[in-house]
Amino acid sequence: MSEQHTFFHTKTTHPLTIGVAGGSGSGKTTVSQAILDRFGEERITYLQHDSYYCDLAHLPLEQRRQVNFDHPDAFDNDLFITHVDALLRGETVAVPTYDFASYTRGPAHMVQAAPVILIEGILIFADAALRERLDIKLFVDAESDLRIIRRLQRDIIERGRTVESVIEQYLTTVRPMHLEFVEPSKRYADIIIPRGGLNAIAIDMITARIAGLLQN
Amino acid sequence: MSEQHTFFHTKTTHPLTIGVAGGSGSGKTTVSQAILDRFGEERITYLQHDSYYCDLAHLPLEQRRQVNFDHPDAFDNDLFITHVDALLRGETVAVPTYDFASYTRGPAHMVQAAPVILIEGILIFADAALRERLDIKLFVDAESDLRIIRRLQRDIIERGRTVESVIEQYLTTVRPMHLEFVEPSKRYADIIIPRGGLNAIAIDMITARIAGLLQN
Repeated sequence: MSEQHTFFHTKTTHPLTIGVAGGSGSGKTTVSQAILDRFGEERITYLQHDSYYCDLAHLPLEQRRQVNFDHPDAFDNDLFITHVDALLRGETVAVPTYDFASYTRGPAHMVQAAPVILIEGILIFADAALRERLDIKLFVDAESDLRIIRRLQRDIIERGRTVESVIEQYLTTVRPMHLEFVEPSKRYADIIIPRGGLNAIAIDMITARIAGLLQN
Repeated sequence: MSEQHTFFHTKTTHPLTIGVAGGSGSGKTTVSQAILDRFGEERITYLQHDSYYCDLAHLPLEQRRQVNFDHPDAFDNDLFITHVDALLRGETVAVPTYDFASYTRGPAHMVQAAPVILIEGILIFADAALRERLDIKLFVDAESDLRIIRRLQRDIIERGRTVESVIEQYLTTVRPMHLEFVEPSKRYADIIIPRGGLNAIAIDMITARIAGLLQN
């Protein structure tokens, strides 16, 4: 499937789609950011799956809090794929923002198509319809102890949460969903990147390939 | 370590070293051959670790047959590293051939230095001194059922062996040494390539990077 997409890409002006998946704390965002830094916003459309969590405005707040946000069903993949397809046709899309305090959608912002569409998310390889739209699938890998350490650091320092609450969420949803959906989706990757964002050699390889494809 | 080497490479005429490791039947040779085909012999020195098995001429034939050829100690890494270092200095080396019938060395053939040194072997990431000499470390990965199937096909069809003898060797040395030495060495890889030789997207990424480095 991916090979066909790549072939198609070289024959037309169809943008190149790159998916960056990997578990929580693996370094996905660092790898995506390194690619973005290298090519700039004019050449890359950056789409985060996280922006497409389902709007839970129809539920009482107590029920919203009980939703498992690490499960594939937490995402509005219909809208997400509609937007990816529109970007592939060169159109501009209204990407929702997500308010994690109220579990509802905030105001959308307009995102333009570019020669490369970079799509990032924990579960983007777990959905067959989404996988089919990805020319290059990168899985950022890191060992589970390092991933929980990064998640602790991020959630405690940046988000002011307690150690206990981070560990509880990790054990009740993050870890079981990782084992059930994220880890098995690694088999669809074209390249697995160990050591995540610190892996300069892998990032150089990816950017060399993107640069080559952008020249065609 | 690898980053320093890459940096060094761009500053001098030091050849670029690429290691291709992975289990038996993973598709290492297919990946190496794809890289060789893309750049040609003038630009790549191809060195197989298999050529550097220890010469067992000093042992009775019966004892030679009992040597575990899937263990790191089966290789003459001192000679191997001496040759890699000589190639890095731009020198020509006399690469031994190995006679798998007598477990002894046959006549050597001269191999010249080139801008890229491509080193292939199951256990090349298991040795720290060898790892330090590799700028880019690629690990070709495949699931164990597919690897034993490929090994069966290769050994039965190409080498005329029986199913029983292949399975016995697999269970007594190939599999335990894979679990003990090959699989743990994957952690040193810069890039992990799933689906081995059939992974055109990964091979395109690697060759794009090599092409870029050769231009510098």
